[in-house]
Amino acid sequence: MDDLTTALVQGDRRALSRAITLIESTRADHRARALALLSDLPGRQALRIGLSGTPGVGKSTFIEAFGKMLTGQGLRVAVLAVDPSSVRSGGSILGDKTRMETLARDPMAFIRPSPSRAELGGVGRRTRETVRLCEAAGFDVVLIETVGVGQSETLVAEMSDLFILLLAPAGGDELQGVKRGIMEIADIILVNKADGALHDTALRTVADYAGALRLMRKRPYDPEGFPQALPVSAQTGLGLDTAWARMTALADWRRDHGHFAARRAEQARHWFLADVRAGLLARLEQPEVRDRLRRAGDAVARGESDPNAAAADVLDWLRTFDACPGADPAVRDGAGAARNRGEKA
Amino acid sequence: MDDLTTALVQGDRRALSRAITLIESTRADHRARALALLSDLPGRQALRIGLSGTPGVGKSTFIEAFGKMLTGQGLRVAVLAVDPSSVRSGGSILGDKTRMETLARDPMAFIRPSPSRAELGGVGRRTRETVRLCEAAGFDVVLIETVGVGQSETLVAEMSDLFILLLAPAGGDELQGVKRGIMEIADIILVNKADGALHDTALRTVADYAGALRLMRKRPYDPEGFPQALPVSAQTGLGLDTAWARMTALADWRRDHGHFAARRAEQARHWFLADVRAGLLARLEQPEVRDRLRRAGDAVARGESDPNAAAADVLDWLRTFDACPGADPAVRDGAGAARNRGEKA
Repeated sequence: MDDLTTALVQGDRRALSRAITLIESTRADHRARALALLSDLPGRQALRIGLSGTPGVGKSTFIEAFGKMLTGQGLRVAVLAVDPSSVRSGGSILGDKTRMETLARDPMAFIRPSPSRAELGGVGRRTRETVRLCEAAGFDVVLIETVGVGQSETLVAEMSDLFILLLAPAGGDELQGVKRGIMEIADIILVNKADGALHDTALRTVADYAGALRLMRKRPYDPEGFPQALPVSAQTGLGLDTAWARMTALADWRRDHGHFAARRAEQARHWFLADVRAGLLARLEQPEVRDRLRRAGDAVARGESDPNAAAADVLDWLRTFDACPGADPAVRDGAGAARNRGEKA
Repeated sequence: MDDLTTALVQGDRRALSRAITLIESTRADHRARALALLSDLPGRQALRIGLSGTPGVGKSTFIEAFGKMLTGQGLRVAVLAVDPSSVRSGGSILGDKTRMETLARDPMAFIRPSPSRAELGGVGRRTRETVRLCEAAGFDVVLIETVGVGQSETLVAEMSDLFILLLAPAGGDELQGVKRGIMEIADIILVNKADGALHDTALRTVADYAGALRLMRKRPYDPEGFPQALPVSAQTGLGLDTAWARMTALADWRRDHGHFAARRAEQARHWFLADVRAGLLARLEQPEVRDRLRRAGDAVARGESDPNAAAADVLDWLRTFDACPGADPAVRDGAGAARNRGEKA
């Protein structure tokens, strides 16, 4: 175990930050060190809670209030973000720490903004690895938050033990605005802003969603009464303790009935396969391959070759190149002549 | 040129259907014939129009009315669908031909339902190839329609010369319901149902969207006044002729200014790269590779190996396997020993 790993396991937050930066790096030497670090981690487990909520629902305020309640109970809480908007813009306008000032200053909490400038798939991979770092650093709860856009919710659910949907109070018409696929992966729906003028609307919204949840197909990994909908208020603190009690009750039941371990096992298999796919596609990022793709792409754009045929040619060449990427091109082409359609690099 | 290609190029609709079926097939021998067919096609060009509209906006009725207007002007019209819902359900509940009965019976029109049971990426690839078949068969306009869900709109825009967004009349609040990313790729926004009780609301909605479009960044491939919003009624036919006039005016301007060809060139390059990625990932579908992935995935799920490390091992093995997939495993491992970490298959 090297110094960084030792400090990380002792719960040193700066070591955790440095380890995450290593994980997020795209440099090959960093990646090698990151993989070594990951294979060296102890098998500690936190409760991994996925949390999704559309903009305007009060997600940051909720995480602050909920996180402070947990740290107040002596629990160490890590907050990670998967922000699909950063895929395009290269980062949020406001950093996540600005959004959650009180929690960010809490020594029992750790907040990490979403990695920027990456494909969603890459964000998923890094966040999943960051979850494991947080567990090794002794955090009890890892909150993985995302906004309700596109595939990011599925991504987060696939690395969580529980998936929580935070919704705003709304009229019955808007209920259908929540996609059925998202309802199907939710374990607990929390309707926020159950305070002041919106209190009654929030309670009606809870009833609406509870009704919708009851109509859904029973899932084998739920005890009686789950999934369920609850009112909360991040402003007044209403329902936060109940929400946490229900989360732990659900997690305990799943642990006792083998579903917790089974879900993590399937998630591990899923992420293994995702890693294989990502690793395969990473071959296209090698300088020689990029160069070849650029030249072939130019020819396609000029109309000199058919996209399909050009792709088949490159794939054929890549097969040989993959086998011996370091070899001299002429020698390599000779060795792989049978598969090379006589092309020269 | 074989019989199928000859019949296709002569505009035979049954030959076109058979060619599309060939393209949609996953059988290796069919794929080889499909690739040969594609590289044999003449370079005819249709106007490729992408059309997106959420369910309930009257998309089928619009396509019927718009399509009949075009065939009435002597134009041959093909309608293709990219339906992301078919990815999960394995097909629409109602076939596309049922939705557009009148157009389906028109000898100047050709309607092809969305390919079912495929990944969205696969649907895109096949639809793009189907567009080329329709062009070769002499169609003047190829309408590629999709519902406004997830990535399907981007997918359709990437194979279209023009991208049209069909919207319903709505109050100002709902304007923001259209994602900014979709507004950014729209060339013309059509507000449907500008008839009867909704007529005035439709006109206000047009004004709202026109205002929103004016606030957006000017795109180099647009003449003055584009993108624009227009009212139409699929029921009464209102505005359909104007909509078509604007589409052709925009296409002509882009042709005259080099943007039309430039866009097709970039699209060809994009699809070439997408084909390379898809082809690379298809290697994971080989029986021996699937078997290996299953076994390694089981070990990961049982907790016997780390997902990252297991993925690295499989990728290493795959490199050698890819180079000589037909070879005897023992010989293959021997030949690739340097890259094989001493593992036996």
